[in-house]
Amino acid sequence: MSKINVGIVGYGNLGQGVETSLSYNDDFNLVGVFTRRDPKSLNTKAYHVDDILDFKEDIDVLILCGGSKNDIPETREFYSTHFSTVDCYDNHKDLLNHYKILDSITKENENVSIIGTGWDPGVFSVQKLYSESFLPNGESYTFYGPGLSQGHSDAVRQVNGVKYGAQYTLPNDHLVKEIEDGKEVNYTKEAAHIRDVYIVSDNTRTDEDIKEEIINMPDYFKGYETNVYFISEDEFKENHQNLNHGGYVLRRGFTNNNQATYKIELNLDSNPEFTASVAVASARAAYRFLKDKNFGAKSLFDVPPSYLSRRTTEEMIQSLL
Amino acid sequence: MSKINVGIVGYGNLGQGVETSLSYNDDFNLVGVFTRRDPKSLNTKAYHVDDILDFKEDIDVLILCGGSKNDIPETREFYSTHFSTVDCYDNHKDLLNHYKILDSITKENENVSIIGTGWDPGVFSVQKLYSESFLPNGESYTFYGPGLSQGHSDAVRQVNGVKYGAQYTLPNDHLVKEIEDGKEVNYTKEAAHIRDVYIVSDNTRTDEDIKEEIINMPDYFKGYETNVYFISEDEFKENHQNLNHGGYVLRRGFTNNNQATYKIELNLDSNPEFTASVAVASARAAYRFLKDKNFGAKSLFDVPPSYLSRRTTEEMIQSLL
Repeated sequence: MSKINVGIVGYGNLGQGVETSLSYNDDFNLVGVFTRRDPKSLNTKAYHVDDILDFKEDIDVLILCGGSKNDIPETREFYSTHFSTVDCYDNHKDLLNHYKILDSITKENENVSIIGTGWDPGVFSVQKLYSESFLPNGESYTFYGPGLSQGHSDAVRQVNGVKYGAQYTLPNDHLVKEIEDGKEVNYTKEAAHIRDVYIVSDNTRTDEDIKEEIINMPDYFKGYETNVYFISEDEFKENHQNLNHGGYVLRRGFTNNNQATYKIELNLDSNPEFTASVAVASARAAYRFLKDKNFGAKSLFDVPPSYLSRRTTEEMIQSLL
Repeated sequence: MSKINVGIVGYGNLGQGVETSLSYNDDFNLVGVFTRRDPKSLNTKAYHVDDILDFKEDIDVLILCGGSKNDIPETREFYSTHFSTVDCYDNHKDLLNHYKILDSITKENENVSIIGTGWDPGVFSVQKLYSESFLPNGESYTFYGPGLSQGHSDAVRQVNGVKYGAQYTLPNDHLVKEIEDGKEVNYTKEAAHIRDVYIVSDNTRTDEDIKEEIINMPDYFKGYETNVYFISEDEFKENHQNLNHGGYVLRRGFTNNNQATYKIELNLDSNPEFTASVAVASARAAYRFLKDKNFGAKSLFDVPPSYLSRRTTEEMIQSLL
């Protein structure tokens, strides 16, 4: 069987995660990593991104690993004109616009783009769709964590007196249990999450002052149950450098007076590596759509689960159904 | 929008569950229930199953709610010749054969059959496929319960001295936690499950004798952690008449040295009503395949999640992605 030829654009956490994930999926061939840096500075088969059109005929699917803030919006027209792509674009507010732009370009150029892969958007989105389809009379709840929040950690580090800071979001397990137990709940983002903050002080302010400023920070902490812990620099460097994340999607539905709960839970030691793994399976699906000449933009909603798998129909039915 | 016209074959727990589920999905029109009993004896719009061909033009999708032991194998050729169907056939060992038979008949007759819907096979199967596709370097574990096992309850009732009996399968939560915590485990069906048995004695044997016979019953209980509780007839009738079930599918995978766990958990007060709800969403998908002229047998592996939903592409992206 011929392999699926992929390229990786960008070599940050996500791009490196894709390279790792490809090593567990031997139906792929990595044509190369495309970077804005000096390709020789990377310890992998790398080319300068300006040369990417030279590889147009060699690449079946390009996995876009740039950032959602600037890279994806600035380059999406170019890549979807010349390549079939998979991205992990996670700007939820812009996803519909993104879909429309890519759908039109890829249809015109006979390409496929699978957008918003990863776990949120991605796995969580699909589970929300499944669970509401199976339990239409019900409600869905999303809980994030336990995991490091990059945005909240950045906010904490802006506070005077903070040398290092990390913020973990934790799901409110008590609220999860109340939903599962069939109780009436008042679900809000604030009630559903707890924020744990680990701080190394630079000793220019009292711990109490720093804590007060953090827990009252609007948008980020005010209204949340927030715990602030002061720790040593050694402890911080030892225990707070990881990239773990996860969470739940929980749907509670009713048929007659019977309750059903549908819960998906992810616990990821490495958020970018799992995101990358979903992107790689999605690249397999993009290749299948391409073979079907089913062009256009897609999300995981449009992907038959079988397209993500290497198994044949017979194997799937025999082993998994 | 014109509604999807469905018929229900069989009016046991599952068929009644389908009727209930349709009431939460107003894009369907129930043409009627088809039964082997006297249609007048049912408190619904019912016809005799022998008259079903009179409704061939009126029905888009037929939901087959007969038993997996005899009804489905005996009638599958007939129904898939004349109708597009959805079934909840759960004889895992025969599913591939079932698929092949139906695929050939439905392609010839321009019908669609979605097989093995429900939660196992069905939701659990799809989650096994997703999780192994996203975490190829890993292992999957299935845990059933807490829930009533019909087969084991029947076995218990065969024991001399047992007047009433109910057997609940419980997942071994300790083992689940060990897997999630990254420990080496020795997963076997026996280690993964605990069996709780509730007995009303007819007082012709000692409780100890009855218990010994149960816990040593080969295939059913021997090798399992089994707890036998003797209760009064009143308590049995009060607390042990329900149809709850559920379980977990858990995948633990690794990328580099990082662990990721993907866990889906179902807790169903009514096993047949949830199974029915999945069948109804699958009937929507069957109708979409029919409109696409994409004939043949399918499982949920082949169904784009969007086909199960009433939402438009734009709504899905905006609300769920």
